[in-house]
Amino acid sequence: MAEHGGNIYKASRISGYCQDKILDFSANINPLGLPFLAREAIITNLDGVVNYPEPGNPRLVSALAGYHGVRDERVITGNGATEIIYLTIRAVNPGRALVLAPSFSEYCRALNTVGCRVEFFQLKEEAGFALDVEGLINRLSDEFHMLLLCNPNNPTGTVVNSDDMKHIIEKAAELGIYVMVDEAFMDFVEDHDKYSMVKCLEDYTNLVIVRAFTKFFGFPGLRLGYGLIGSNRLKLIMENIKEPWSVNFLAEKAGIASLNDVEYIKKTREWLGSEKIYLFKALENMEGIKPYRSSANFILSRILRPGMGAGKLQDLMLQRGILIRNAGNFQGLDDSYVRLAVKSREANRCLVQVLEEILKSEASGDES
Amino acid sequence: MAEHGGNIYKASRISGYCQDKILDFSANINPLGLPFLAREAIITNLDGVVNYPEPGNPRLVSALAGYHGVRDERVITGNGATEIIYLTIRAVNPGRALVLAPSFSEYCRALNTVGCRVEFFQLKEEAGFALDVEGLINRLSDEFHMLLLCNPNNPTGTVVNSDDMKHIIEKAAELGIYVMVDEAFMDFVEDHDKYSMVKCLEDYTNLVIVRAFTKFFGFPGLRLGYGLIGSNRLKLIMENIKEPWSVNFLAEKAGIASLNDVEYIKKTREWLGSEKIYLFKALENMEGIKPYRSSANFILSRILRPGMGAGKLQDLMLQRGILIRNAGNFQGLDDSYVRLAVKSREANRCLVQVLEEILKSEASGDES
Repeated sequence: MAEHGGNIYKASRISGYCQDKILDFSANINPLGLPFLAREAIITNLDGVVNYPEPGNPRLVSALAGYHGVRDERVITGNGATEIIYLTIRAVNPGRALVLAPSFSEYCRALNTVGCRVEFFQLKEEAGFALDVEGLINRLSDEFHMLLLCNPNNPTGTVVNSDDMKHIIEKAAELGIYVMVDEAFMDFVEDHDKYSMVKCLEDYTNLVIVRAFTKFFGFPGLRLGYGLIGSNRLKLIMENIKEPWSVNFLAEKAGIASLNDVEYIKKTREWLGSEKIYLFKALENMEGIKPYRSSANFILSRILRPGMGAGKLQDLMLQRGILIRNAGNFQGLDDSYVRLAVKSREANRCLVQVLEEILKSEASGDES
Repeated sequence: MAEHGGNIYKASRISGYCQDKILDFSANINPLGLPFLAREAIITNLDGVVNYPEPGNPRLVSALAGYHGVRDERVITGNGATEIIYLTIRAVNPGRALVLAPSFSEYCRALNTVGCRVEFFQLKEEAGFALDVEGLINRLSDEFHMLLLCNPNNPTGTVVNSDDMKHIIEKAAELGIYVMVDEAFMDFVEDHDKYSMVKCLEDYTNLVIVRAFTKFFGFPGLRLGYGLIGSNRLKLIMENIKEPWSVNFLAEKAGIASLNDVEYIKKTREWLGSEKIYLFKALENMEGIKPYRSSANFILSRILRPGMGAGKLQDLMLQRGILIRNAGNFQGLDDSYVRLAVKSREANRCLVQVLEEILKSEASGDES
């Protein structure tokens, strides 16, 4: 399995820092932590774990349907967005699929488990990794069974607006291609209504939207995601092959509670609105690194120092207690890329300071 | 999906009883509730949910390996035993499999998801549903790729000793058949060392043992199970196709803590030792029902009243706030069977009283 971000356990063993002393910029999680209402729900419902969760999680399904203004029948819950990704791929069972490069590596891994042939559509660095919508549409053919998009895209943070997305999905529909749009980071996008496909769900039977819960609401450890499925038939197949009780009881309760935590949602938008600008500008003004514009809560950046790869930078940062994501293992990127999550001002300031020091000292050429 | 036990949510909607007022005999869960150390671990580690769980759960793996006296490399963790069952079946990918009837219905469902042809080996009522070991061995042939056993078997409670099990597994090995032994209820068995295959794990590369965590330790809502895998190659395939982060952080912490809760384990054995005898004798002395001897924490029983099926009995019991498992949907059983979990003395007494009343009043023939 490709190494993901967020492994503070391994980072702690390597660096000698306690887990809770490590500043983790490698996972794209809301730094505001567990919403107050979610914490309350977990504690209140602790004794409920002596029962099985309710099959299909109908209460959570209703809460999500209400939140998005879709019908209950459209919603399927999962043990993280990961379960929905794997389940969709098993249900579609594609023979050939098209995936963006770079993009979240689990699409490829999940496609491999069903023996699918994967082709890549490369995002271009010159374009800041923005998706070439026309190019993608031209690339589609009836040889593909599935197209996997991530919007905003991980790790680039680039976003496609819903009009462009409609063109893609319509062309795919003509060709009999299912489109999975992973909106795991959509809640972090300003004006996300312009980009999310949720409101178009009823229009496309070839559309599957994947949503994560635990990135925006800050509890990836509890595991909660969901899918919004445009096709009744595909949804039925997914239900038929889905493992029972996959969403644990506390995740369900925390999920329902979080949707009502208006205060948390508001604070999150305020935090990200200012902090992303702060971090981006600091990176832009720094020598030796180039950040790419992002619509999500993370910033892909390229290291411009000769002799300094992402692996080396990651090691040096970790020696200072800061964990960053080496993005070199994303298909279509190389060892010059890192991904940095946006965190609190205090943490971001610390990141900027340490990064600047390391890039400067390495530039002075100690090791030539 | 076949209806399982433990759906107190649906039972509550049907009966009008509050969920926590329903006495649930339909799920086979330890009535002692959440172990003290598990509860403490959940509360202490609550803030850890802001991080991803550690991939592969190495700490839990080590704790389980120590508990069972096996090497870490043998252990794989899962989102309930269910994930291990589905994962094993996906990894083996059998074309034809042999399953006991009656037995846990998810084997069949999981086999169906990979397009496997399923054949059944019927357990005989006359034998109290004890497995005919010689008969099973004779039934094996190299046309089968997989044999799925449940020990003790759900819903019959019958158990196979480890010598008999070895004969089965050795014959299967000769024929190239993987054997999955689901020991989800093994912890409840007296002298379980005589029955569990854990100590033979290193001897058989065609052996997969499935263990549940949350039945014995009373937290099915948190979801935790694991597999002990005899074959390095199969384990590697399982790891390659397994979804990342499938075990949530709180389940991991509660699991590690539970293994150390010696007091809870001792109390559980004391409770079951006396209560199973109490409930069995009460059922044996009752007119209109026949209990079968069980080595687990539940008792399969046959209703002997004409005109009284399991569905009807379930409805009548639920009107009194008691949920029992209609076992009529198990392959190989019919509408005359119910499965009753062993609970606390107070609850068992209540079950016995209500059951007796219903069976008596129906025998008096009100509805003729």
